[in-house]
Amino acid sequence: MSAKGAETKQRMIEATRASIERRGYFGTGLNQILADSDTPRGSLYFHFPGGKDELVAAAVTRSTGSIEAAIQAADITDPAAAFTGLITLLGDRLEESGWVCGCPIATVALEVAGENDTVQRACAEVYDRWTQALRVVLRATGRADADDLAVALLALVEGGLVLAQAQRSRAPLDSVSRVARTML
Amino acid sequence: MSAKGAETKQRMIEATRASIERRGYFGTGLNQILADSDTPRGSLYFHFPGGKDELVAAAVTRSTGSIEAAIQAADITDPAAAFTGLITLLGDRLEESGWVCGCPIATVALEVAGENDTVQRACAEVYDRWTQALRVVLRATGRADADDLAVALLALVEGGLVLAQAQRSRAPLDSVSRVARTML
Repeated sequence: MSAKGAETKQRMIEATRASIERRGYFGTGLNQILADSDTPRGSLYFHFPGGKDELVAAAVTRSTGSIEAAIQAADITDPAAAFTGLITLLGDRLEESGWVCGCPIATVALEVAGENDTVQRACAEVYDRWTQALRVVLRATGRADADDLAVALLALVEGGLVLAQAQRSRAPLDSVSRVARTML
Repeated sequence: MSAKGAETKQRMIEATRASIERRGYFGTGLNQILADSDTPRGSLYFHFPGGKDELVAAAVTRSTGSIEAAIQAADITDPAAAFTGLITLLGDRLEESGWVCGCPIATVALEVAGENDTVQRACAEVYDRWTQALRVVLRATGRADADDLAVALLALVEGGLVLAQAQRSRAPLDSVSRVARTML
């Protein structure tokens, strides 16, 4: 692929990443993605022969980064403070976006994970990576229940974001944060 | 409204409830709802002058029932067992549906709560009712942190369902259940 082609492909993935975070799978239209990324229609099937599903899966995979980086940057000597920091970061992001940018992949996961294998695999891999990043931090603290706790902390993050978005309020994240501190 | 009209209205709400649970707001089409509920197009704006948003909000409100009933039926002398029972119930439902029926309103909440006031209010009220039902159970146990814990348990349920649906596996719900037992 030419450098220009690679750049076009990345622009399409980025436009899709931004759209699925805000509007999910069904709310993301290919015409809008082509317009947002300033791309001719022919580029879509050239770069993504699998069409919308392949593009959305690539956008889901692209969404891994920021949360994984935040977890990996955690201070393992103080997991409670690290978790509170992650919740604060996500709460800031959600509030600043006008209560639309919660978990970047949860909307897509809930919409189509049951029925769309391509997108489901991408979502499962991202959640696995986040769980694994939490597990590494928790195992380093020597906790015997690190594996279960990693899943539960990710569930608290995901569920806290659902409730905060539904209520347009950070209060649910604050409650989650206080309870998590007692667990860590 | 005639008895027949009332029955038609209920049938439309029920068809919409079933659709938003599986496919969310954007995946729910009015033509499909009219077909599923065997209703003429004229009935839509007669019963729901606010159109799709009013219909979806009514369907969200209708979705309160089963989870609220399960929480209210909880044995308050053993909240850990009661929470495990709720998770098992929801896990059974999710698995039996082929990994599409998780939280009945979370998909809609994530898709539009930031931008659609009518649907957002309905979602926020349902989550408030579930939180309140958990709070009543936890306060009865005399816990000082009952209010925060009610929110955190609901977040664990919501987040556990997101992860289980994304991974098409009950394992995340099992982890959540084990961690919740140590908290209760």
